[in-house]
Amino acid sequence: MKSLLTRILAALLLLTNVALAADPLPSWNDGAAKASIVAFVEKVTKPGSPDFVPVPERIATFDNDGTLWCEQPVPVQLYFALDRVKALAPQHPEWKTKEPFASLLKGDLKTALADGDHALLELVMATLTGMTTVEFEQIVKDWIATAKHPKTGKLYTEMVYQPMQELLVYLRANAFKTYIVSGGGIEFMRAWADEVYGIPPEQVIGSSIKTKFEIRDGKAVLVRLPELNFNDDKAGKAISINLHIGRRPVMAFGNSDGDREMLEYTQGGSGVRFELVVLHDDAAREYAYGPAKGLPDVKLGAFTQALYDQAKKNNWTVVSMKEDWNRVFAFEK
Amino acid sequence: MKSLLTRILAALLLLTNVALAADPLPSWNDGAAKASIVAFVEKVTKPGSPDFVPVPERIATFDNDGTLWCEQPVPVQLYFALDRVKALAPQHPEWKTKEPFASLLKGDLKTALADGDHALLELVMATLTGMTTVEFEQIVKDWIATAKHPKTGKLYTEMVYQPMQELLVYLRANAFKTYIVSGGGIEFMRAWADEVYGIPPEQVIGSSIKTKFEIRDGKAVLVRLPELNFNDDKAGKAISINLHIGRRPVMAFGNSDGDREMLEYTQGGSGVRFELVVLHDDAAREYAYGPAKGLPDVKLGAFTQALYDQAKKNNWTVVSMKEDWNRVFAFEK
Repeated sequence: MKSLLTRILAALLLLTNVALAADPLPSWNDGAAKASIVAFVEKVTKPGSPDFVPVPERIATFDNDGTLWCEQPVPVQLYFALDRVKALAPQHPEWKTKEPFASLLKGDLKTALADGDHALLELVMATLTGMTTVEFEQIVKDWIATAKHPKTGKLYTEMVYQPMQELLVYLRANAFKTYIVSGGGIEFMRAWADEVYGIPPEQVIGSSIKTKFEIRDGKAVLVRLPELNFNDDKAGKAISINLHIGRRPVMAFGNSDGDREMLEYTQGGSGVRFELVVLHDDAAREYAYGPAKGLPDVKLGAFTQALYDQAKKNNWTVVSMKEDWNRVFAFEK
Repeated sequence: MKSLLTRILAALLLLTNVALAADPLPSWNDGAAKASIVAFVEKVTKPGSPDFVPVPERIATFDNDGTLWCEQPVPVQLYFALDRVKALAPQHPEWKTKEPFASLLKGDLKTALADGDHALLELVMATLTGMTTVEFEQIVKDWIATAKHPKTGKLYTEMVYQPMQELLVYLRANAFKTYIVSGGGIEFMRAWADEVYGIPPEQVIGSSIKTKFEIRDGKAVLVRLPELNFNDDKAGKAISINLHIGRRPVMAFGNSDGDREMLEYTQGGSGVRFELVVLHDDAAREYAYGPAKGLPDVKLGAFTQALYDQAKKNNWTVVSMKEDWNRVFAFEK
């Protein structure tokens, strides 16, 4: 016959197992960041809580590059544009001497990107317009099915952060509607966001180019034009959230200065709100970049010391990838 | 003891009652229009049907003015702008001699509108900008709570078409996501669409003005600017559907030439699709206007003979308000 102590220990073990099994965020280490997320979700979803948020108002917005998936050494969409440049180069002999195409064709991404956002925009205009939206979607799908990250050799769709995937599932299980609000191309992301993140096209917001309505072969189509429609970065993120959603987010997640206004707009709403920024301080498992906290500076996706200071002052949760995540990618052992 | 015939008749009567009670569209007369709606919904929702549409793809888009609510004698938003002009007139003595303000202040809507869409836009710019989006929402809510239709004396929110209300509920019961896609102001409609139609802000698409991100009193706000952002009419409807939803509608509903491209874009998708146009041919219960089928012409919201012919040719359902609806407004006896 088992002793009382044995039975108590067995019962405690069982409880612990149940608790562990029920942890919706297993890739998050116990700590302030994880605790702040869970405490917030519990208080806004508990009926009768003074901070209760009705289901239709449970909106959570996520930046994509550097927040949901890896954006180093350069954003994924640039690799996509690069492969398009290579594919289209035979039809464009002038690219051999014209920037940013010339540097790209030589494999020199750094020089091609020296001009920052403008170069990326020029690439998009030259390589990702002229076709219908349906044709474009297929081009993206074909590319993303096989394109691989230059350092890890994994598919880009495997370069998504496992802790954020768990967070998306956890929020949706708590009746949040999860949105992407990204500086990336809206139609680029929609081609795979549903499959990869479980986020449907109508919940993906991003930068866009203009389109033109046409009848082709008797059927209505939209043709992509080489003209910017909307730059969904910085203040643009607050503006697009209002335009597409018409509600302030209750929770917002970012990782760079481009997300500042989205976080401010979220915090500016009435009642309780939650803001979080991911700091990439894990050179071993991913990349380390800032320049906040003395981390190396990057041109695109910079997390400045000013953003870090603002996060601390405004009580935004700062996630240290190194400290707060016990797993970064699902493919890790 | 009842005869067998009596019992059979009683059973049939019971079945008939059940069938009548279960009719999701009681304000629609039995006829081709109603039958086309029900047949389509049944075939796309029946598991195993060759035309089955998965739930996430069940998108239905509705024009608002003249499709979901009355747009005569002039669109509701014009009455709103008119009341704003009156309220702001003391601060604008120049309006006494400047069109379209001068005519409006004299109560001459026809002259004020002679310039068509442009006059409406000018009114919106002059009277509905400068405030934050939150302040604007409150102004609309305050106005719509008491503003009444000049002919019926009913609240504008009571001037919604009962058959279309039933249709919205019926489609949502069949897992369709219902959207508004209107030339009207997106923020004007969002202020009441959820309460009136059960359509939440993120499913309302419309014309918009630009907004500017600002920090006021330490809080992030968006300020409405006197500059058009997007005219959500004609080809704009197909473009905005792609931008906001990222999927082609499976069903689309309109009532004027401004809806043509939305209907064409819907029909241009793969698989089965459904398009419907409402013809206002009921002067007794609502208004009669076209100019299709010899009905009186109107400046805004015209249903031309060309649209009618296209609808017939493309197999779009044409609803005759007079023939197909046994009730137009819920307030009718």
